[in-house]
Amino acid sequence: METALHPDVEALACLLGSWSGEGEGHYPTIDPFAYREEISFSHAGKPFLAYRQATVRVDTGLPAHAEMGYLRGAGPGRVELVMAHPTGVAEVAEGTVEASTDGLVVRLHSTSVTGTPTAKEVRSIERSLAVAGDVLSYDLSMAAVGEALQHHLHAELHRMA
Amino acid sequence: METALHPDVEALACLLGSWSGEGEGHYPTIDPFAYREEISFSHAGKPFLAYRQATVRVDTGLPAHAEMGYLRGAGPGRVELVMAHPTGVAEVAEGTVEASTDGLVVRLHSTSVTGTPTAKEVRSIERSLAVAGDVLSYDLSMAAVGEALQHHLHAELHRMA
Repeated sequence: METALHPDVEALACLLGSWSGEGEGHYPTIDPFAYREEISFSHAGKPFLAYRQATVRVDTGLPAHAEMGYLRGAGPGRVELVMAHPTGVAEVAEGTVEASTDGLVVRLHSTSVTGTPTAKEVRSIERSLAVAGDVLSYDLSMAAVGEALQHHLHAELHRMA
Repeated sequence: METALHPDVEALACLLGSWSGEGEGHYPTIDPFAYREEISFSHAGKPFLAYRQATVRVDTGLPAHAEMGYLRGAGPGRVELVMAHPTGVAEVAEGTVEASTDGLVVRLHSTSVTGTPTAKEVRSIERSLAVAGDVLSYDLSMAAVGEALQHHLHAELHRMA
């Protein structure tokens, strides 16, 4: 029997499932790079979705970034994010979810970014994520390693069968 | 071809794999409870292990807590943890790993615990985790919802085939 989706995350339902695609990253301190990515959103009947992501570099095929965390319903039109990064960074964010004609738009800004002693310094992260039919796209901006908040990642993924 | 373990997490090798078992929780603000748990540690050849955990209540069989994050090598005998909790809490911790005759002992204390606006207040978390042969056991203490740091969880799991 399939577990019913919790009403607090009903507005996020079209995220559920697995997504595959490609993205590009750039930042003043590094060379631009391209990556392949898989994302999954799942639920267990509770008021949050579990999120996992992993990328491999297009040029080398080697594992690049990964992250995982939870997207929480936080009242009508409101969402919260808690994310663990293997770089030693923990991201806590809040924002909005809006329905679109064939999907949704989620916008999140960090309220705290903390790190382990050996983590690179990240001060803030902004995310926008859109689903339109079977396409999921996102942008991520970041203030890190002494640089001002600026665009870092863009990717476009398709729903996997 | 199996990916080689990164030397920075060599000391954590015996954690790798899947574990299944039972635990008990208590705290002044709640009734004691028993849970079944599965834990997995995996790696992708980078200097961290990915960790996932999920529990179900013994009495109801329903999903209870879950958490996921990363355990990072941080130099000889040192480890760091970044954990996302679906309760809206992000945990950053550091500590030690020591080899034992047939396993290891990891001890971690939080250096920051942050939360979303709707999260319950958690101020600090201490974890100890031991592997002895095919048994993994852990204890978790927590200072939360106005209570002093005190024991909250104990569990014992066995390595899954």
